[in-house]
Amino acid sequence: MMEEKDFVETTVSRENVFNGKIISVAVDQVVLADGTQAERELVFHPGGVGIIAITEDEKLILVKQFRKPFERTMLEIPAGKIERDEKDPRKTAIRELEEETGLGCSSMEAIYDFSLSPGFANEILYLYQAKGLYPVARPADQDEDERIELQFVTLAEAKELIKSKAIFDSKTIMAIQYWELEQLRKK
Amino acid sequence: MMEEKDFVETTVSRENVFNGKIISVAVDQVVLADGTQAERELVFHPGGVGIIAITEDEKLILVKQFRKPFERTMLEIPAGKIERDEKDPRKTAIRELEEETGLGCSSMEAIYDFSLSPGFANEILYLYQAKGLYPVARPADQDEDERIELQFVTLAEAKELIKSKAIFDSKTIMAIQYWELEQLRKK
Repeated sequence: MMEEKDFVETTVSRENVFNGKIISVAVDQVVLADGTQAERELVFHPGGVGIIAITEDEKLILVKQFRKPFERTMLEIPAGKIERDEKDPRKTAIRELEEETGLGCSSMEAIYDFSLSPGFANEILYLYQAKGLYPVARPADQDEDERIELQFVTLAEAKELIKSKAIFDSKTIMAIQYWELEQLRKK
Repeated sequence: MMEEKDFVETTVSRENVFNGKIISVAVDQVVLADGTQAERELVFHPGGVGIIAITEDEKLILVKQFRKPFERTMLEIPAGKIERDEKDPRKTAIRELEEETGLGCSSMEAIYDFSLSPGFANEILYLYQAKGLYPVARPADQDEDERIELQFVTLAEAKELIKSKAIFDSKTIMAIQYWELEQLRKK
């Protein structure tokens, strides 16, 4: 059995190759415990939140939006990046839920947090479940450069949307599996 | 209701800012349907596979490895990048399962495929389930610059590892949910 130190990759040098508004990119030269040299391309990202929001009539709220890396629209759970001044991802989740759906909630419960592409990106996603949804009188505006539309779907519809690939991202599939697990455990 | 064309972001220009061995990075200037201008930072990645492999005695196979973006080890399902010459992700999955676990399988079934960070990266992950596992006589070698160790865990142990954050990535959490859904549906 390997010890923890046998896994460690020690940084020999780092070259910063891109500093954007959202991401930055670096190339690390590393050395493994046995002396093997290797290169690691790394993306740094502030992280984000995703919110499972299910209405009283048992429908999941989805957001339709254009995703430039895929040049297509996708259906996803409400989500967004953690802003520079936000220390608590729960507050990001409350803000994003209001901006994207116009809804507030009586509780915002942490479900899981996790990396998305641990091989190259340090992005963490914090998944929450919003309970006790209510309309906010004057909701905060959406991001100025985002165009979105809401859809409300049953569990059966959500599973069909995964099959058709209209739903095509990990946090949304994870949210739908979480919802189905909750339903099956109730029975 | 918005029409499909109302969502489209048209590329005005693209600046390539980094070309690495694995990822490349570009910045797109785009214009939304109503004329609003915006910038999109994009990461291009060849995509990868993850494999749900459950042994005859009902244990999930996990791979422990160091993940440089987080400077720590994580436990993940067997996984790996699609190589340049690989057209079929199923073949990548068969190769990675053999390299990382020394096992072959009688069937490699597609479960879901999905994006991980659709806001900025075009990476797709293809999730498979390997059935009918058997040891390969002379398995292909692991990647020369990877140090990994296998662990075999029950469903209850896997759920504890999510809570302790030893498991900290979306594909592995999704795989464990999928496994639990399979078990609950059998009852």
